[in-house]
Amino acid sequence: MKEKIRELSIQLFATKGFKETSIQDIVDALNVTKGTFYYYFTTKEQLLMDIHLKYIDELLSKQEAIISDKNINCKEKLYKIVYLLIHDIKKEGLSAKVFFREMRNLNEQHLALIVPKRDHFRLNIQKVLDEGISNNEIRGDLPTDIVTFSILGMTNWSYFWFDPNGRRTDQEVSDVFIKVLLEGLEK
Amino acid sequence: MKEKIRELSIQLFATKGFKETSIQDIVDALNVTKGTFYYYFTTKEQLLMDIHLKYIDELLSKQEAIISDKNINCKEKLYKIVYLLIHDIKKEGLSAKVFFREMRNLNEQHLALIVPKRDHFRLNIQKVLDEGISNNEIRGDLPTDIVTFSILGMTNWSYFWFDPNGRRTDQEVSDVFIKVLLEGLEK
Repeated sequence: MKEKIRELSIQLFATKGFKETSIQDIVDALNVTKGTFYYYFTTKEQLLMDIHLKYIDELLSKQEAIISDKNINCKEKLYKIVYLLIHDIKKEGLSAKVFFREMRNLNEQHLALIVPKRDHFRLNIQKVLDEGISNNEIRGDLPTDIVTFSILGMTNWSYFWFDPNGRRTDQEVSDVFIKVLLEGLEK
Repeated sequence: MKEKIRELSIQLFATKGFKETSIQDIVDALNVTKGTFYYYFTTKEQLLMDIHLKYIDELLSKQEAIISDKNINCKEKLYKIVYLLIHDIKKEGLSAKVFFREMRNLNEQHLALIVPKRDHFRLNIQKVLDEGISNNEIRGDLPTDIVTFSILGMTNWSYFWFDPNGRRTDQEVSDVFIKVLLEGLEK
């Protein structure tokens, strides 16, 4: 039931917005009582935190698996991280929407748990770039903090335009992104 | 007074949110009556539309000036468009925040006026890329629609992290972005 509440709430938060969705809306849609809701979550905000935590923890653990893979070089790691994020829109599009849009509705205590995880994900990308520079795979004349933001910009912005059921596949989009990033547009 | 209402509202919408800001909040902060507000705007939503329209119209006209400049090539046009957007955060940071965050609060009729302008801005970038391909400045093997989204991703995502008063200047960030885009990261 906890998972059902979470899934249904992700749908409601993504379409109506967090503030616009009441606990009553959630329990009505599931045809259960408020008591059931309060058995699993103390508040609506705690449910939002639960959604945020699950979303970022899953991304982080997948990213860590890519980074620690000793059989691929840094460029391949970058590709896999880009693909992880674009593919994720297909799989977890609504959670992503809720993650990006509704973070400001978390209380300070909860934000203090989520923000370091977001930073961790970002710094992991920067680490891959720094490693790529020492390995001589990646040019060393650009500040990797800004380059990291350029990569995250491409991928995170995709949540606003990429339609997994549209004419471009997640594979195609990732391929173009990584070619732009690694090879550049110049002829 | 109209300009004062607009400016103050941008501040309130950016910090508190559109829905959380009442017309009473706006007139209280300006020390005027509700009558003054209604002299210039029929509803709070119409004020939001006014902010959106001014924001996108200014960006579009600056972009058109760059695109129609016959003395610069396509790569330089791309640089200028990237710089336009990053520099804009310094100048119009709060308007940008309101533009990105509060668009969903526009009614359908108003959205139907804003969305084509956003699309126009995006398609102008794609046009520069297509021109660059015919001029032999830009590689022709990547779909320019996705490349355009990668550029807009970099720049638009900056609204969420770039601090114009931080240790990186708008110039520095634009330089890194354009180097990544044109030259790529590969060594």
